[in-house]
Amino acid sequence: MKNSLFGSLMPKEPKFFPLFKEIADLILESSNLIIDCLKKGDRESEIEYGKKIKELEKKGDKLNSIIFEELNTTFITPFDREDIHHLANRLDDVIDRINSCIKKIVLYNPAKIPPTAVALAEYVKKDAETLINVVGELDVLKKNSKRIKEQSLLLHQIENDADDVYEHFLIDLFENEKDAIEIIKLKEIISELETATDAADQVGKIIQTIIVKYA
Amino acid sequence: MKNSLFGSLMPKEPKFFPLFKEIADLILESSNLIIDCLKKGDRESEIEYGKKIKELEKKGDKLNSIIFEELNTTFITPFDREDIHHLANRLDDVIDRINSCIKKIVLYNPAKIPPTAVALAEYVKKDAETLINVVGELDVLKKNSKRIKEQSLLLHQIENDADDVYEHFLIDLFENEKDAIEIIKLKEIISELETATDAADQVGKIIQTIIVKYA
Amino acid sequence: MKNSLFGSLMPKEPKFFPLFKEIADLILESSNLIIDCLKKGDRESEIEYGKKIKELEKKGDKLNSIIFEELNTTFITPFDREDIHHLANRLDDVIDRINSCIKKIVLYNPAKIPPTAVALAEYVKKDAETLINVVGELDVLKKNSKRIKEQSLLLHQIENDADDVYEHFLIDLFENEKDAIEIIKLKEIISELETATDAADQVGKIIQTIIVKYA
Repeated sequence: MKNSLFGSLMPKEPKFFPLFKEIADLILESSNLIIDCLKKGDRESEIEYGKKIKELEKKGDKLNSIIFEELNTTFITPFDREDIHHLANRLDDVIDRINSCIKKIVLYNPAKIPPTAVALAEYVKKDAETLINVVGELDVLKKNSKRIKEQSLLLHQIENDADDVYEHFLIDLFENEKDAIEIIKLKEIISELETATDAADQVGKIIQTIIVKYA
Repeated sequence: MKNSLFGSLMPKEPKFFPLFKEIADLILESSNLIIDCLKKGDRESEIEYGKKIKELEKKGDKLNSIIFEELNTTFITPFDREDIHHLANRLDDVIDRINSCIKKIVLYNPAKIPPTAVALAEYVKKDAETLINVVGELDVLKKNSKRIKEQSLLLHQIENDADDVYEHFLIDLFENEKDAIEIIKLKEIISELETATDAADQVGKIIQTIIVKYA
Repeated sequence: MKNSLFGSLMPKEPKFFPLFKEIADLILESSNLIIDCLKKGDRESEIEYGKKIKELEKKGDKLNSIIFEELNTTFITPFDREDIHHLANRLDDVIDRINSCIKKIVLYNPAKIPPTAVALAEYVKKDAETLINVVGELDVLKKNSKRIKEQSLLLHQIENDADDVYEHFLIDLFENEKDAIEIIKLKEIISELETATDAADQVGKIIQTIIVKYA
């Protein structure tokens, strides 16, 4: 149909989907980096990986600006402009949380980081993989609505599981750490990863709203 | 009119309102349980009531899923699909906060819980009663818009009052509790109840937006 | 064109813009007051300025109610009712944060307030000035869309800069304050100003959404 008159008249708006995909890829890359960094656990790696993740966070910001510009110059959008805008913002939030986590590790320099941090970062990675899948299905929303719903529910499940891990990290912290300042530092640092899974869950909820409106 | 042709052609969508009502009933039930539990104050009750409230939280999640499914299979909705979706989500948040509060009591096991906790839980109960009233009026939005607005403002007032009680709890805590770890624990626990009144206020704000659009 | 038939038939809805402007003016006034108060730094000023800022916060609430009433009685609105509603709510949040900051200073009575507080309050003032500019351009959205976008980005930049200052305040606090309770108090107090810049950034994001829809 590529060369037919009809084809050339068809409203085509494929550009948003690859951009969403690029942000989701950045989330995966950031979560892989923070997992590596937490496993190494030395100060030098923290500083080095901190810089790398900051670069990815800047790329995420740039992709968001591009989406915003596209929205302003595109006549026909695949779904409501504001939904595209929110979706891009919430996806970007996930990278922001990963970046805040490593930044706080570098800045607060806690005595030691508990293994829960790796466990939570693994959940963020699982989010990233799910997000890559789900944004890859958005272009044929109606056809894929069942699978998209399942993946949105998976994002919610991951958030619940991460929340449990975070709660148990806190119990352990309250029981075993006697230095209140260390407690405050670690709570600040580890909660960023839990909030990253919240942000991914928010993406799932926005996608559910889009399904409710269009599928 | 039940058997008339006209009646059968009328778009009828009464199913969302009873579902909202059911969630609001769950909020009332949860708030009654947490008040009882806080009054008893022993560890055994905390564990027992914790389980009961968890059950209600699961029921809330199920009602949310049903609403989501209804939205996807219903052609005509009483107001915007996304508003129904948000309303159900925010109502469910109130139960989630009550559940988080009791869960944190069980998990962190603080030395003692201050009487403010009961005072705040009573505000959540007042929210529950107001929410039951307000969702009961939504089916005749235009006719009841004045009363709905008043109740939305009442939810805002409750949130303000609860906020004051929470602030004074914190002052008292900072003055009288010398163990910083206990301060962190109690702040985490009690703030959940304050956040529950925030969530109820959010429901009020969504309802105000619906009035702005439809009434 | 004032007396022409065409002019009299034109839908005119200028009332929302002056109301937004009034709220933005209140933000500027509140930020000036809190800067003065923090510079004085004595307990008496804190109580006195606390009362003054509370008055402004009440005025903000009243303006919000007026906007809500206008929305309910106005047939034609310059853009979506819900966007006007959100915009007013988020603008009001900025004043609420300033008020919470001074309220917590009065209530928690920390040993001393770090100079960072003034630095952050200056960012809130910069927000206020930017908000006054940006709400002043909304009435001719299409014509001013480039400048409005720039100012939205400036709100985002201010939020980023304030976030950095806040992070460095926390590092300093963790390094130099040995009393965990003082750390908790100051974190609560100073984070309100950082959250104020978040709220201003949210206003920028809502305005970007409005541009995406209308410009």
